Amino acid sequence: MAMLPMIEYEDAPAEVRDVYDDIMETRQVKWVNNFWKVLANDPETLRRTWESIKQVMAPGALDPLTKEMIYVAVSMANNCHYCINSHTAAARRKGMTDDMLAELIAVVGMAAETNHVANAYRVDLDQAFMDGGR
Amino acid sequence: MAMLPMIEYEDAPAEVRDVYDDIMETRQVKWVNNFWKVLANDPETLRRTWESIKQVMAPGALDPLTKEMIYVAVSMANNCHYCINSHTAAARRKGMTDDMLAELIAVVGMAAETNHVANAYRVDLDQAFMDGGR
Amino acid sequence: MAMLPMIEYEDAPAEVRDVYDDIMETRQVKWVNNFWKVLANDPETLRRTWESIKQVMAPGALDPLTKEMIYVAVSMANNCHYCINSHTAAARRKGMTDDMLAELIAVVGMAAETNHVANAYRVDLDQAFMDGGR
Amino acid sequence: MAMLPMIEYEDAPAEVRDVYDDIMETRQVKWVNNFWKVLANDPETLRRTWESIKQVMAPGALDPLTKEMIYVAVSMANNCHYCINSHTAAARRKGMTDDMLAELIAVVGMAAETNHVANAYRVDLDQAFMDGGR
Amino acid sequence: MAMLPMIEYEDAPAEVRDVYDDIMETRQVKWVNNFWKVLANDPETLRRTWESIKQVMAPGALDPLTKEMIYVAVSMANNCHYCINSHTAAARRKGMTDDMLAELIAVVGMAAETNHVANAYRVDLDQAFMDGGR
Amino acid sequence: MAMLPMIEYEDAPAEVRDVYDDIMETRQVKWVNNFWKVLANDPETLRRTWESIKQVMAPGALDPLTKEMIYVAVSMANNCHYCINSHTAAARRKGMTDDMLAELIAVVGMAAETNHVANAYRVDLDQAFMDGGR
Repeated sequence: MAMLPMIEYEDAPAEVRDVYDDIMETRQVKWVNNFWKVLANDPETLRRTWESIKQVMAPGALDPLTKEMIYVAVSMANNCHYCINSHTAAARRKGMTDDMLAELIAVVGMAAETNHVANAYRVDLDQAFMDGGR
Repeated sequence: MAMLPMIEYEDAPAEVRDVYDDIMETRQVKWVNNFWKVLANDPETLRRTWESIKQVMAPGALDPLTKEMIYVAVSMANNCHYCINSHTAAARRKGMTDDMLAELIAVVGMAAETNHVANAYRVDLDQAFMDGGR
Repeated sequence: MAMLPMIEYEDAPAEVRDVYDDIMETRQVKWVNNFWKVLANDPETLRRTWESIKQVMAPGALDPLTKEMIYVAVSMANNCHYCINSHTAAARRKGMTDDMLAELIAVVGMAAETNHVANAYRVDLDQAFMDGGR
Repeated sequence: MAMLPMIEYEDAPAEVRDVYDDIMETRQVKWVNNFWKVLANDPETLRRTWESIKQVMAPGALDPLTKEMIYVAVSMANNCHYCINSHTAAARRKGMTDDMLAELIAVVGMAAETNHVANAYRVDLDQAFMDGGR
Repeated sequence: MAMLPMIEYEDAPAEVRDVYDDIMETRQVKWVNNFWKVLANDPETLRRTWESIKQVMAPGALDPLTKEMIYVAVSMANNCHYCINSHTAAARRKGMTDDMLAELIAVVGMAAETNHVANAYRVDLDQAFMDGGR
Repeated sequence: MAMLPMIEYEDAPAEVRDVYDDIMETRQVKWVNNFWKVLANDPETLRRTWESIKQVMAPGALDPLTKEMIYVAVSMANNCHYCINSHTAAARRKGMTDDMLAELIAVVGMAAETNHVANAYRVDLDQAFMDGGR
C-alpha cells in the first residue's frame, strides 16, 4: 500500500506504459517495481525521475557498481527502508558481494560517528582541507 | 575554535603523542589535523576512534578510494562541513578527480530525492527486494 | 503498541479527559487518535502539546490547508511514519486532492535533491540571498 | 568558494550558456546565482537539474507560492543554509510576507517536535489514518 | 543576522517585554539571547516557546542538568549550531565539566554509529526489546 | 531478517563466540541480541563495535544510566527503531522509570522544535555562547 494507489501496466495510460517499457528493457527484467507504480499517478514526475536516474547512474567517470554502492550508502544515511533494499538488490546484481556490503556498512557507521562528533565539537576546518583540498 | 581546546603536540601527554605519531606515519604527513587535536581532550576516545578508522578504511573487499568516496557521500548526507572537506581532500589524494566528485554528488542528490519520495509515499517493498535481494 | 501504554478515555484522569474532550470538539470527531493516548502518560505534556498545535495551526497569515501541507512536507523530510499518515489524512479533510499530494511530494523530492547537492558542494551564499533576501 | 570552481558566463561552453540564458529569461533577472555556477562543472547535471526544477515548480494543482513555501520548509528540515536563504528570497518575490514566514517557521518547529515525539514513542498508526486516510 | 530582524527590548511591545523580563528573572541574567529576539517577531510563538521550555526543563523525574545534557545531545544529532553552543553553555552553568562533555560527545558518536548500522542492516527487533522492554 | 543472515552461537567461529561470551558475561544475560548476530558476518567489525561500546558506556564522569539515556535520545533523533527499543530496555534495567522516559521524550521533542526553528531563522550566535561558553 502507499499514499496513492499503484498503477498497474494494464490500467496505465500510454505515456506511463512507455516509461514502464523502457524500465523493463533497460534493466532486462519483465516487471516494474512498486516505486514506479506509485510515481505513475503523476506521469510527468514518473518520466522525469526515470530519465534522471538513467542519466545519473550511467557509466561515466565512476562505474555503475560504485555509483550503486554510493546510492545504497546515502539511502542508509537517510534511513529509506525501500531504497536500502531495492538498491542493495541492484548492487548485488552488479557484483556486490556479502563482504563488500559488510564493509560498506562499516564505512557508513564510522562516517556517521565522526560526522556527529565533528559536528558536536564544532571543529574548525584546517586550511589544507578548504574546498576539499582543491 | 571548538567546544574544547585543541591539544598541540608539544603540550600533549605521551599517550596522545603516540596516536599523533601513528596518524602522521600512517598518512605520511607531518601534521595532525584539528579533528584529532580536539578529540585528544579524551585520550581513550582519541585512540579508539583512530584505531577504528584505521581498521574500517584499510583495503579489504573494497579498495581504499571506494571506501573514501562512500565516506564522503555519507558525510554529505549527514551535512558535516568538516568531514565533507577533510574526506574529499583524502579522496583526492587517493585519486578522485573533479569529474568523479561531480558524479558522486549527482548520485548523492538523486538518492536523496528518491529517498524522500519513497519515504513520503510509504511505498511497500517488493517481494523481490526483501533483505536486499539476498 | 508504543513505549508507554495508551490511556483510554474511561481510564483517564479528569485533566486528561478535559484535553480529549477539547480535541474531539475542536476537530468535530468522536474519537481520539493514538498519539494523544500515548502522550497522556504525561498530562502536562499532553496539554502543552495540544494547546501548542491549536495555536500554531489556527488560521493566520497562512490558511489551515497550507499549514497542514507544510506540516506533511516536514514530516516527510523527518521521516515520521505516524505523522505523514495522520497529517496527510488531516490535509485531505481540509481539501487536499490526490493531484495536490503528488505535486507536494514532487516538491519535497526536488528540494531534498538540491538541499543535498548544495550542502555537498558547500556553495557560497549569493549577496542577494543574504537573510533570505530581506 | 565551493568544492569545485564556479563557471562564469564568459568562460562557459555553449551548452552551459544556453541553460544560464534560460534561467535568466525564465526568472526575468540578469544574473545567475552561485548554485548553478557550481553545477555547471557537470553540464548534464546542470541541464537536468534546471529542467527538473522548472517542471516541479510550474503552476499546477498547487500554486507557485505554495510550492515555494513547501520548498523552504523542507530546506529548513534538511538544514541547507544555501537553500533556506535562496528559496526564502524566491518566496518573498512571489508574495510571502514576514508574517507568513514566521507562521511557516512555527509550523516547521511544531512538526519537528511531534515528528520526534511520535518516532520516540513508536506510536501505532490508527486504522483511520492508514495510507493517509485515502 | 537572521531571516527576520532581532527585536531589542527598547523597541519591543509590552507583551514581548513581559516574556523578556521573565526570561531574565528565571535565568538570573541581565540580557536576552538572540534566539528570543528573533522569535519576538511573532509574540505568540515567543510566549508559547518560552512557556514550553520552562515546563519541559523544570526539575521533575529528571534533574535539570540531565535534561540539559539530553538537550545538547539531541541538538548535536540535529546539527543545530546555535543550539549546541547555547545549551552547552547552559549545561556548563548547571555543572557539566569538560570531562562530562567529552563523554557525552563520545556517547553521541557511538549511538550515531550503531543507529546507522542497525538501520543499514534492517535488523529485526528481538522479542525481549519490544516496546522498549516494558 | 536482515541484509545479511544472523550468525547463531552454534554456527559461529571461535573469534565470534569469544565476543558473544563477553557480551553475555558483561551483561549477565544468557542470550545475544540480533544486532550482534548480524554484525558477526564481519568478525572484525563485531569485535571493534563491542569493544567500543564497552569503553564508551563504562562509568566515568557520567554514570551509566545518564549515558544510556543520552544514547536513547540520540537514537530517537536519528530515528533508529531497533536502537530506540533496545537502549530503552537497557535504560530501564539501569533504573529509568516511566516518568523519566516521558520527560526524556519531552526534552527530545522540545529540542527538536528549537533546533529546527533556530536553523530555520539562521539565528546569529551570541558572543557569550561561543564555543559553548567555555
